[in-house]
Amino acid sequence: MLIVMHKNAARAEVDNVVAAVEARGCTARPIPGGDRVSIAILYNQGAVEPGWFSGMPGVKETIAVTRPYKLVSREMHPHDTVIRVGNIEIGGRYPVIMAGPCAVESRDQAMTIAGHVKKAGAHIFRGGAFKPRTSPYSFQGMEEEGLKVLAEVRGRFDLPIVTEVMDIAHFDMVEAYADIIQIGTRNMQNFSLLKRAGESEKPVLLKRGMSATVDEWLMAAEYIMSRGNTGIILCERGIRTFVRHSRNTLDLSAVPVVRRESHLPVIVDPSHAAGFRDQVMPLARAACAAGAQGLMVEVHHAPETAVSDGAQSLLPDQFARLCKDIRAISRILEPGPGKEQVAP
Amino acid sequence: MLIVMHKNAARAEVDNVVAAVEARGCTARPIPGGDRVSIAILYNQGAVEPGWFSGMPGVKETIAVTRPYKLVSREMHPHDTVIRVGNIEIGGRYPVIMAGPCAVESRDQAMTIAGHVKKAGAHIFRGGAFKPRTSPYSFQGMEEEGLKVLAEVRGRFDLPIVTEVMDIAHFDMVEAYADIIQIGTRNMQNFSLLKRAGESEKPVLLKRGMSATVDEWLMAAEYIMSRGNTGIILCERGIRTFVRHSRNTLDLSAVPVVRRESHLPVIVDPSHAAGFRDQVMPLARAACAAGAQGLMVEVHHAPETAVSDGAQSLLPDQFARLCKDIRAISRILEPGPGKEQVAP
Amino acid sequence: MLIVMHKNAARAEVDNVVAAVEARGCTARPIPGGDRVSIAILYNQGAVEPGWFSGMPGVKETIAVTRPYKLVSREMHPHDTVIRVGNIEIGGRYPVIMAGPCAVESRDQAMTIAGHVKKAGAHIFRGGAFKPRTSPYSFQGMEEEGLKVLAEVRGRFDLPIVTEVMDIAHFDMVEAYADIIQIGTRNMQNFSLLKRAGESEKPVLLKRGMSATVDEWLMAAEYIMSRGNTGIILCERGIRTFVRHSRNTLDLSAVPVVRRESHLPVIVDPSHAAGFRDQVMPLARAACAAGAQGLMVEVHHAPETAVSDGAQSLLPDQFARLCKDIRAISRILEPGPGKEQVAP
Amino acid sequence: MLIVMHKNAARAEVDNVVAAVEARGCTARPIPGGDRVSIAILYNQGAVEPGWFSGMPGVKETIAVTRPYKLVSREMHPHDTVIRVGNIEIGGRYPVIMAGPCAVESRDQAMTIAGHVKKAGAHIFRGGAFKPRTSPYSFQGMEEEGLKVLAEVRGRFDLPIVTEVMDIAHFDMVEAYADIIQIGTRNMQNFSLLKRAGESEKPVLLKRGMSATVDEWLMAAEYIMSRGNTGIILCERGIRTFVRHSRNTLDLSAVPVVRRESHLPVIVDPSHAAGFRDQVMPLARAACAAGAQGLMVEVHHAPETAVSDGAQSLLPDQFARLCKDIRAISRILEPGPGKEQVAP
Repeated sequence: MLIVMHKNAARAEVDNVVAAVEARGCTARPIPGGDRVSIAILYNQGAVEPGWFSGMPGVKETIAVTRPYKLVSREMHPHDTVIRVGNIEIGGRYPVIMAGPCAVESRDQAMTIAGHVKKAGAHIFRGGAFKPRTSPYSFQGMEEEGLKVLAEVRGRFDLPIVTEVMDIAHFDMVEAYADIIQIGTRNMQNFSLLKRAGESEKPVLLKRGMSATVDEWLMAAEYIMSRGNTGIILCERGIRTFVRHSRNTLDLSAVPVVRRESHLPVIVDPSHAAGFRDQVMPLARAACAAGAQGLMVEVHHAPETAVSDGAQSLLPDQFARLCKDIRAISRILEPGPGKEQVAP
Repeated sequence: MLIVMHKNAARAEVDNVVAAVEARGCTARPIPGGDRVSIAILYNQGAVEPGWFSGMPGVKETIAVTRPYKLVSREMHPHDTVIRVGNIEIGGRYPVIMAGPCAVESRDQAMTIAGHVKKAGAHIFRGGAFKPRTSPYSFQGMEEEGLKVLAEVRGRFDLPIVTEVMDIAHFDMVEAYADIIQIGTRNMQNFSLLKRAGESEKPVLLKRGMSATVDEWLMAAEYIMSRGNTGIILCERGIRTFVRHSRNTLDLSAVPVVRRESHLPVIVDPSHAAGFRDQVMPLARAACAAGAQGLMVEVHHAPETAVSDGAQSLLPDQFARLCKDIRAISRILEPGPGKEQVAP
Repeated sequence: MLIVMHKNAARAEVDNVVAAVEARGCTARPIPGGDRVSIAILYNQGAVEPGWFSGMPGVKETIAVTRPYKLVSREMHPHDTVIRVGNIEIGGRYPVIMAGPCAVESRDQAMTIAGHVKKAGAHIFRGGAFKPRTSPYSFQGMEEEGLKVLAEVRGRFDLPIVTEVMDIAHFDMVEAYADIIQIGTRNMQNFSLLKRAGESEKPVLLKRGMSATVDEWLMAAEYIMSRGNTGIILCERGIRTFVRHSRNTLDLSAVPVVRRESHLPVIVDPSHAAGFRDQVMPLARAACAAGAQGLMVEVHHAPETAVSDGAQSLLPDQFARLCKDIRAISRILEPGPGKEQVAP
Repeated sequence: MLIVMHKNAARAEVDNVVAAVEARGCTARPIPGGDRVSIAILYNQGAVEPGWFSGMPGVKETIAVTRPYKLVSREMHPHDTVIRVGNIEIGGRYPVIMAGPCAVESRDQAMTIAGHVKKAGAHIFRGGAFKPRTSPYSFQGMEEEGLKVLAEVRGRFDLPIVTEVMDIAHFDMVEAYADIIQIGTRNMQNFSLLKRAGESEKPVLLKRGMSATVDEWLMAAEYIMSRGNTGIILCERGIRTFVRHSRNTLDLSAVPVVRRESHLPVIVDPSHAAGFRDQVMPLARAACAAGAQGLMVEVHHAPETAVSDGAQSLLPDQFARLCKDIRAISRILEPGPGKEQVAP
């Protein structure tokens, strides 16, 4: 941490701050700048709270220097983490495509869509059995019946399953059925849920919170990893901005930033970012071209009947064309998507 | 809902949309505009999904007209809700001041601060026993020991207690000790927690999510109220914006908007919005002047030792001056803060 | 426009609003909804001001339906506009690459960089002679000397020139030297400048304002086109959000939205969006994959000496690799980038 | 500036950066931290460009420490600047109220409104003769005729005039009529206009850009002051955020921050921030309570006929009540609004 003093701070004020730093067992080094003194805190063990110094006389502001995450950091673990689910590799050479409906609505609906996405080349099937809905009056998901349908899809189409868990109370149940456990954008800082996920042996797909910084997102992953679970897939899904032409704004710069800062794989969900079908394909191709290691896409064969998010679901033939484009783009990016931004 | 057609939409496309609306049991009324046709959906029962129509040929976009909330809406319940906790009225004539440390750190710390805030005129004591922290390595709260300390504060200083619950697993415990149960900004859309809070007989203080619209916030309150708990206090605490000189940006226009849209009381937390002590007093006075029905303020007698958020805690004498200012401003605003914006 | 009434609006209040609409020469049609009445305004000529009705008794809110732009709208002009500069086509089958330094710093610097970007395959040379700088103490550009250098680059490398104009006072001068006149993000709503650009016979590259909606951006283009200049290239360059890991957040969903709403070509500037070199290549490839009809990229052979924006400039060999990637991606997207989102 | 190195940066890389800093005539001091080295740049004269170092091997990031503004900074000039216009003091003991219509529409309209606001206690009359409008088809202002009407208002009601200038071409004309020259939010970084304003002898009211940081805003003021004009009034008018219930989000924390960082007076425009009449009074009172040294408020006697922004204009009797509230709040804040946040 750097403590920046006022231009007119007195010598005694600087000395006071130095003494306060050293009273906490750290080393303080004053640095005379062009027109003011700053004080660097050296050799600190653990976090230093800005509030310890920010109110002292002569102090103008405090600036954090060290990143707060450790286990998820590429500096600690230089090589890419690759997560294996069945014979699928997430974080390996080629992007992984997860596709399916927003919500499991019925056995027939799930089977129909699974047939389409399998044929087009999807690697993993997505579908919600517990749905976080803004309104208490909206469809809340088929719950365990939905999980059973997903298990049946897995058996019939040889597609691993990713599905969302919304709370600790249902964690055991979702864990029993899913191949990858999804934590949604609204729960990115549900710390109790993150701790429970950290004790699971199943990989966790952690969506970025709608207004989370990359630091906060990586710290949420740190919660999981600090409990022992190293199988974490990060998923960028759009942030909330002033923009009104799309549901959220996809922050693709997060892809190279996460790949530089962390060894964990990062994928992109263009469907929730866009909110409208005609933006999903351009954003999905863009995500792949930006180096995303996978995509999560909503597909529905009859969106005009969908109980949620029909407006953003691709039709099966659009999805088939998208898979073709993604394969072509990922071949161009050899010898590895985003390779240029990963080197230390 | 209004379905807006393309300028060059064919007559058959309009007819198709009308037929689709009527197939769902609603009434469609085409409205010729200056240069395009729109189709209004009338007499709908329950929510209409934009996705049902947005992909149809000739459709340009869909626009929601009706607000989604019901029970929390002032249109359904024109009179202000007043919540009584002991002999304190939240939502009544005068603003209610909740104050105390960010976290309960020890019995001594809590007692010292409680003495200060009681003397200055606070009505309710705040303090966290379970702390949502960005880092898994930060202090996570004293948990049940902290709740016991809060109970002792209540007994000794005759101050009702507001404290945060972070998950369903600890709900019963927090409910047993607290007078008001706080749901934090990161949990505003933790729907399982909202449902459980809806079954409580204790009032709930619902903080606005850091990037939530007022509609989403009121829908979160609707989750609680739809389960039977009508004692809900809304708390504006700053939103995430591009601004870097404060921790968040306090959205004071939310106060008159919530008071117009809902009958529930709305208070303001200037401490988390500001993040820095020297902004807290101006924002607290501003909140009162804008018609907030209460304040939640962090106070610490020794912020340089605080385990969390020391930089934004007021010192006891600053808090005493603030209480004086708030009383003076609230007297000016007679016969009722925000009265002018509440009329239909 | 749609005027939404309160649930409990009286019949007389509805009648009053209807009378007020008709007093302005429009037709009012009341639409009874599930629980409230809305009033549609039909056959309006020209803009309708929300303020005319929003304060009337019983009125809850007003909702705009019609888009405000006309000449730039695809509904008015269904076919893509293609702009020819020399033998380059902007808005045609393949993306156009504009590249060069942030600022022209010297004849040598410009020639060196022009040699690199020409060889790599750039179509147009960019470089600023007038620089909008946050600080009055920063380098403000070489002004006319810089324009002369740009003219020399054009002659020697057969590269058309795009360069920024910052005010009306220098418009004639910039117009005399440039092939494409750039209006920067901070001037997107400098309406006097837009009007002057509308009288030019040179194409205008109009950058999106850092916090402009797509509607506002298209209205800025409408200012230009309403004065007679139809040669407008739109350029997305990132918006201001809460994100801190990049200088701005590139809003790639704007590409399909602009292509659907307007017939004008849209290109992307990944350099200013990113602010950091290691994000520029992923974002540039992403922009192409999203259907952008061109790129504007900063390149510098010695960024550690650049007077501005060195941290975001690509090195010549990075740029050469990027051009190769862009050509490969654009071939995949046959028969036309973004084609699927352009259909009506 | 602080240059943060990677955890695993080699000794030679650190030495290289030190050499590069010293090659530019600055002093480099390496600071060993808990787990990485940072390098402080000392005794720098003038700005240091991050791009000079950010691409060097082993460099993780660069962090600016010094604020870029000088002349407008309170560190350089500790005492409040007070601007006198006639016998009005802006930046003195009491808040100054500027009021009037958005646009001058006619002589009658201006005289009627001026009569109302004078009677209620306004100190300065506002009204636009040149209007920045999003649409080229909207009313663009009465131009010089409007300025003549304003001059007549001044003569008849003894009210100084503040009015907006939109470009250099009309600067002389506006300067000749106005007592205070307003630079609008869209022109905050129109650097040519700022330079011209710096050469005026009339005070300048500089509105904050809709997405400007406080640093950028103060740098815009620095442009004016560096040309010799020290009469600058800063005006917060709301920033663009994701919020949709108000036109912009009023950032009241900017008031104490500007008062701490700068000696210039800061006022607030609640009308443009709100966009809706029923939010204007709460926000205006809040601004005063937060320590704003003045208000700029739109008033119209017949908003349903206003050519622009009628929905946000107060009615005369609302404005009279507001003036009464503002006087009462400002008396409470003795001995000076915002005094507590101004001390160094």
